[in-house]
Amino acid sequence: MSAAINRQIVLKARPNGLPGPDNFDFVEGEVPSPVPGQALIRTLYLSIDPAMKGWISSARGYSEPVPLGGVMRSLGVGEVVESRHEALAPGDFVCGMPGWQDYALSDGTEPFFRKLDPAAAPLSTALGVLGLNGLTAYFGLLDVGAPAAGETVVVSTAAGGVGSAVGQIARLQGCRAVGLAGGPAKVALCREAFGYDAAIDYKAADVAAALRSACPDGIDVFFDNTGGPILDAVLGQFNLGARIVVCGTAATASWDPPPRGPRVERAILVARARMQGILIFDYAARYPEGLAALAGWIADGRLGYREDIRDGLEAAPAALADLYAGGNTGKLLVRVRPDPTRTS
Amino acid sequence: MSAAINRQIVLKARPNGLPGPDNFDFVEGEVPSPVPGQALIRTLYLSIDPAMKGWISSARGYSEPVPLGGVMRSLGVGEVVESRHEALAPGDFVCGMPGWQDYALSDGTEPFFRKLDPAAAPLSTALGVLGLNGLTAYFGLLDVGAPAAGETVVVSTAAGGVGSAVGQIARLQGCRAVGLAGGPAKVALCREAFGYDAAIDYKAADVAAALRSACPDGIDVFFDNTGGPILDAVLGQFNLGARIVVCGTAATASWDPPPRGPRVERAILVARARMQGILIFDYAARYPEGLAALAGWIADGRLGYREDIRDGLEAAPAALADLYAGGNTGKLLVRVRPDPTRTS
Repeated sequence: MSAAINRQIVLKARPNGLPGPDNFDFVEGEVPSPVPGQALIRTLYLSIDPAMKGWISSARGYSEPVPLGGVMRSLGVGEVVESRHEALAPGDFVCGMPGWQDYALSDGTEPFFRKLDPAAAPLSTALGVLGLNGLTAYFGLLDVGAPAAGETVVVSTAAGGVGSAVGQIARLQGCRAVGLAGGPAKVALCREAFGYDAAIDYKAADVAAALRSACPDGIDVFFDNTGGPILDAVLGQFNLGARIVVCGTAATASWDPPPRGPRVERAILVARARMQGILIFDYAARYPEGLAALAGWIADGRLGYREDIRDGLEAAPAALADLYAGGNTGKLLVRVRPDPTRTS
Repeated sequence: MSAAINRQIVLKARPNGLPGPDNFDFVEGEVPSPVPGQALIRTLYLSIDPAMKGWISSARGYSEPVPLGGVMRSLGVGEVVESRHEALAPGDFVCGMPGWQDYALSDGTEPFFRKLDPAAAPLSTALGVLGLNGLTAYFGLLDVGAPAAGETVVVSTAAGGVGSAVGQIARLQGCRAVGLAGGPAKVALCREAFGYDAAIDYKAADVAAALRSACPDGIDVFFDNTGGPILDAVLGQFNLGARIVVCGTAATASWDPPPRGPRVERAILVARARMQGILIFDYAARYPEGLAALAGWIADGRLGYREDIRDGLEAAPAALADLYAGGNTGKLLVRVRPDPTRTS
């Protein structure tokens, strides 16, 4: 492999606000060679995720920030092309954390690393509905949101990778699902593809008024991927004992310093509401349970998903900017090279 | 009884901010007569509570606001002087909701109505450590805060009726208890009377810096009676899985409109924290459990309390203003007439 080139996208500058192409550089290096215990993975798909903003910020977050000059961190799916790892062989497909590059070494210990069976589900779903997105929806809604049949569940970024699964799982629990999404195309997806009982275009509507109309019995669970003004609009409409699942803060470009907004403590007190953060990695021990449930619903045709696939490694920085601009419909992926398991 | 006068304090105007004597009027009426199923109660003690601000606000709250011209709502302890209620007899002492007046009718169905045994504990404690204050501390800390031995529990209004019990119960669970109180007298009470491991004068200190010093292992539970800037200072110091018990919002004078502050969702997400409101009336079915535990700790000398008693019905409005000004040390009560069960 040593003659091949490893294209890489590295962090050039931390964003002051939302990241875009200016924050990254393209470089080329040699393809690395695995040492004992490692395998060399050739990247097929990369996952473009809202969390990436946090990974390249210097503010306190879940994990160490990507260093300046370092390869951009990214979940991805790839094929083993060379292996000195006893459990991995050339031709195996894996989900891991290759970063934005053609080739990466893996010792199989990254968070969420697993081997994939391309006959069971398309490889790309390991980055979406059968991956962290679906698991986040599953555990976030069921464990933290704890919806009961008949309750009303509101979801922000309702047509996205996490949100679309939340809305459908809420309906599977017998709940009324109300989605918030940006623009008519996503609102139509919510209603037609994902089965929401109601969907609101937060860019066009008075969100608070539209929610009052769409949630005549009040709001019991808010699964929040955005925070910001949408959270503010939901706050006053909680039923007693409401649960707010804090899953993401995509609406806020920068937390350094934290922006200001209406204080929340009175609304939480009056409704005896519970506002709780979720990070899917905390549920690692229960991934098999979640994946089995999600796979079952997909096989039954009760859980659908959409992918928005951009082609070429070089498309990644613009795809990331487009994610924060709300330009994607469905789970946003970059296909670095053709998927050998797909004929189309 | 019909010749006696019933002095009453009624709501004259809703406060624009914190309530004070200008919001109330003194009137005199006839002492009412009980109909079948009612008893006439002569007020002995009134409880002056932070929640009163909400009871006279027109903003959405737990309960219907006190109407203009209506007797100010208040918990109190009194003596039955006339009864047409089968379970109540003259000479009985009861805890109920008499309002700011000399005489009130009761049918025994008010929230928290119960008969008191003056031989078991001083009557006034039914309005404090053996009443809603103690129960709020007990269920709020143990059920919502769920502290584990070795964790750090921070309490705001740490020397008050609720806070002082929270700090002591936290220590009984094997936790490090850190109190926030206003002024050197209350800080001394925290350390000397209530056993806090550390106490901070939030009026004098850089609260965030003082907390970092007093909580070297971070904050696991924040029992918050104030909200506002103290909550903001605590937010960045949470350990993973921290719990915030939202019990009161005394720091905010008016919620109409809600004041602005730093947005909270990122801190909650990063720490996977849980922020949850508590209202003690939700625990009514479990009061006996809580009262038994509190009474046991008091009898063992492991749970102390302080009372700050003001004399005369006419002292109530100024006492309420003083509560929000932080002028009380210990549970604030108004003694409407001498307590016949106390000899001193």
